Amino acid sequence: MTRERLYLFDTTLRDGQQTPGIDFSLEDKIAIAKLLDEFGFDYVEGGYPGANPTDTAFFSKKRTGRASFVAFGMTKRAGVSASNDPGLAGLIQAAGDSVCLVAKSWDYHVKVALGCSNEENLDSIRESVTAVIASGKEAMVDCEHFFDGYKANRAYATACARAAYEAGARWVVLCDTNGGTQPTEIAEIVSTLIAGGIPGDRLGIHAHNDTGQAVANSLAAVEAGVRQVQGTLNGIGERCGNANLITLAATLALKPVYADRFVTGVSQDKLTGLTSLSHSFDELLNRSPATQAPYVGASAFATKAGIHASALLKDPRTYEHVPPESVGNFRKVMVSDQGGKSNFINALKQRGITVAKDDPKLDKLISLVKEREATGYAYEGADASFELLAHRTLGRVPEFFSVTSFRVMVERRFDAMGRIRTVSEAVVKLVVDGQEMMSVAEGHGPVNALDIAMRKDLGVYQDEIGDLELSDYKVRILNGGTEAITRVLIESTDGTGARWWTVGVSDNIIDASFQALMDSIVFKLMKNRDLAGQVAAE
Amino acid sequence: MTRERLYLFDTTLRDGQQTPGIDFSLEDKIAIAKLLDEFGFDYVEGGYPGANPTDTAFFSKKRTGRASFVAFGMTKRAGVSASNDPGLAGLIQAAGDSVCLVAKSWDYHVKVALGCSNEENLDSIRESVTAVIASGKEAMVDCEHFFDGYKANRAYATACARAAYEAGARWVVLCDTNGGTQPTEIAEIVSTLIAGGIPGDRLGIHAHNDTGQAVANSLAAVEAGVRQVQGTLNGIGERCGNANLITLAATLALKPVYADRFVTGVSQDKLTGLTSLSHSFDELLNRSPATQAPYVGASAFATKAGIHASALLKDPRTYEHVPPESVGNFRKVMVSDQGGKSNFINALKQRGITVAKDDPKLDKLISLVKEREATGYAYEGADASFELLAHRTLGRVPEFFSVTSFRVMVERRFDAMGRIRTVSEAVVKLVVDGQEMMSVAEGHGPVNALDIAMRKDLGVYQDEIGDLELSDYKVRILNGGTEAITRVLIESTDGTGARWWTVGVSDNIIDASFQALMDSIVFKLMKNRDLAGQVAAE
Repeated sequence: MTRERLYLFDTTLRDGQQTPGIDFSLEDKIAIAKLLDEFGFDYVEGGYPGANPTDTAFFSKKRTGRASFVAFGMTKRAGVSASNDPGLAGLIQAAGDSVCLVAKSWDYHVKVALGCSNEENLDSIRESVTAVIASGKEAMVDCEHFFDGYKANRAYATACARAAYEAGARWVVLCDTNGGTQPTEIAEIVSTLIAGGIPGDRLGIHAHNDTGQAVANSLAAVEAGVRQVQGTLNGIGERCGNANLITLAATLALKPVYADRFVTGVSQDKLTGLTSLSHSFDELLNRSPATQAPYVGASAFATKAGIHASALLKDPRTYEHVPPESVGNFRKVMVSDQGGKSNFINALKQRGITVAKDDPKLDKLISLVKEREATGYAYEGADASFELLAHRTLGRVPEFFSVTSFRVMVERRFDAMGRIRTVSEAVVKLVVDGQEMMSVAEGHGPVNALDIAMRKDLGVYQDEIGDLELSDYKVRILNGGTEAITRVLIESTDGTGARWWTVGVSDNIIDASFQALMDSIVFKLMKNRDLAGQVAAE
Repeated sequence: MTRERLYLFDTTLRDGQQTPGIDFSLEDKIAIAKLLDEFGFDYVEGGYPGANPTDTAFFSKKRTGRASFVAFGMTKRAGVSASNDPGLAGLIQAAGDSVCLVAKSWDYHVKVALGCSNEENLDSIRESVTAVIASGKEAMVDCEHFFDGYKANRAYATACARAAYEAGARWVVLCDTNGGTQPTEIAEIVSTLIAGGIPGDRLGIHAHNDTGQAVANSLAAVEAGVRQVQGTLNGIGERCGNANLITLAATLALKPVYADRFVTGVSQDKLTGLTSLSHSFDELLNRSPATQAPYVGASAFATKAGIHASALLKDPRTYEHVPPESVGNFRKVMVSDQGGKSNFINALKQRGITVAKDDPKLDKLISLVKEREATGYAYEGADASFELLAHRTLGRVPEFFSVTSFRVMVERRFDAMGRIRTVSEAVVKLVVDGQEMMSVAEGHGPVNALDIAMRKDLGVYQDEIGDLELSDYKVRILNGGTEAITRVLIESTDGTGARWWTVGVSDNIIDASFQALMDSIVFKLMKNRDLAGQVAAE
């Protein structure tokens, strides 16, 4: 059976830029365009040349290989001809294969925002499309506010879409600009439009997530007949974001209800890079990936419950909606106080530690984990600490070094100039290879000072930890108030790109941080010796 | 036109507890059940009595007023009668109005996980439902893996649902346990089931978000006929989470396509508490609310600088899919916040501070708050600090005392007996009434030591702060990593039962804590003089 071609259109660099807090530099845009192009998206919308210096510079040359490189901008203004509109001329002159013209399709906005007549707006659409096509580029039209416009004035919204189609636009994109339309409404409106004579293979959908339905709306439109889907990486975008292309690419490729009917430009082989694409993009935005993201989140294939966990490992297919490796993610059976013995054995196995079911040390480890979790440790969020505890209990961690004592001081006082100054200083005394050494450091706050002091001189191991970095630090106060217990989670990373989490718990935040820092360093040394398991590679 | 009743079933406390990193204490569960009950959800599923000590204690009494309080557990085991099954007996004996029985409905899992015959499983369903009903409670059945089971063995999955229905279960809940089913499949399967004789007003839907479709799947099931919808606050849950009841409650109430046909237990009036409910829950989990969450996110009604912003202010209805105030959220125009000034005046008025609209000090306060919030302060969670800042900017806070300097030391070393000891000590130098004094104290951790030292001798004010207590302490690390900024929130209380929150922000956790402690003491002194506003009474 021949599958129909579905086109994926990425607007991360244009509409995604509307996300509060996100502003791409030219270098960001170049790097992201490369990721998108290589992954197999059909269209990469790069921005609005002429609107700002970054976008203008970005469009000084073509930034994609295989993918069509799209410039976004407005249709010509009313009252001037297409050839005399400098905005439109700029779009056409910009490097790129396609021009996506945004056009009003809600009569209210034509009046209020454009201040022209309905007929003038239709003329602008027709003439702008004609001018783009005449330049040899592909033309497409984003019908802004299409669905709300359709509800307000069905005939006019339809006339806008038809004007674009009849003028020869390759794609007429129906935009749910305010994001409030529901899937059933999308399905009905798209079907009516197609029945009215605009073929589905000339229609696209652009959905926003204001009611959590951007993915559903996109797929409802596909089922109703559209053949181009717009969205962004990880669903970034204005307000609640755009349709998440990461999710859509996976669903279209892996769910038989779509995969049996459609094919996109993303090969099954490329799809195994999905998790990496999603995380690389977050890395570029300097934010932590969402752990619960569909398909690609760290928790997307994680199981906590004891009863499910053992059955899961017997036959993963019956507990996982798709194989995690199909999207480059992996299965995770978490250690937690809900877990049973087989859960533990498997958690250990995943980390390269084999232990017999009847080994008394295993029972010791299980009761140790449960006991510690009862006092506030959270091993499910601290794989590296769990692994170290397991190795220690089963008797296999070398004592690389020991800390004899430490002292941390924070002082706030007025300096000689009369300004308030807060200084943090840490002194650490440790024994490495039989030799006692002492280090002192200042830092931003006491934990930072302690971290620097501990890693300042590890003697024979110093070279090995040069690329170790503390990348995240989380504090949670358990049972607030004066009896408070503090849990510290630390994420570390090194030159190989590996990341690992360690945990410390104490009624003293410095002490809790110390435990987590110690585990991080020891884990790194284990990892350097290939003694650490899969965690490091994850 | 009469609208049909739709029942909202919250499983935050049961299925939500499967979220990686989330473990509710008994106190958490009590507080959350209260929020859910007051908001208007019909069912509050509290957990699995008998499975762990917390859930057992939680079910020692009924925890809801209006809402039905639901205990979750398994159907009786094969081979014993319902009356001889201790698990089932425990469920029936637990406090609560309803029992939700989970039953396998995929023949594969019946064989592999239960190890009994298909017929025995049907017997377990029937007999367990009968036993629950005989006890006078409402019975419902979660058909686990229903949709995957249906695809594998349509007749058997249907037989399970039918067995529950015919035995008298009030609700037969169709669970997409693995979360991979698409809306079109849900619609088709539910429709077939209803056509086969199980009425929709006896059916429920339980969806997971593994393909980003949990909300869409829930609504597709509603359109196909089910009348109970299960979900969780903010969509927490195993893997990618459950259906988000916050989103669903808003969509069902505000989108005509649903609001015209259905009514839920959440009144329009209660719906204005939606944003607060969502944020309070995150606060309890000590995590930042998702800024892009549908309806309730801080960005959900935010518009970034540009063409839309001014048009938006002219006529918000054409740029917003619902009015932000309908869900207790607010419009945010990110360049020049037109609504900002009157918001501030109202916030001050609530605290008994009147200020004229054209007072230049008001502009100063507004820019100060914006500036500080940009660096990490969160005044919406720290009313007392906001009030102090307002009083200070408007020039009305007496200088009760000042801190010249402080020093905090944490030392970990071996004591004379060879045991590890961690000692925290703080020294504070302050000036009260022209007199310099110095106090020293030890504590559990550096913040506790600092708190004790600061309150040890306040000279003439000492008597006044005798009943001041630090009741909660929260730390959040903003932008993790080495550039981390720490935000500390402190809750204080006194003999009058009043509670107030103060905030401190710094790259140094001790310094941030110091700021919040200072504000707390000064607020207490203001309050004693009746200079503090409503905050204290809230």
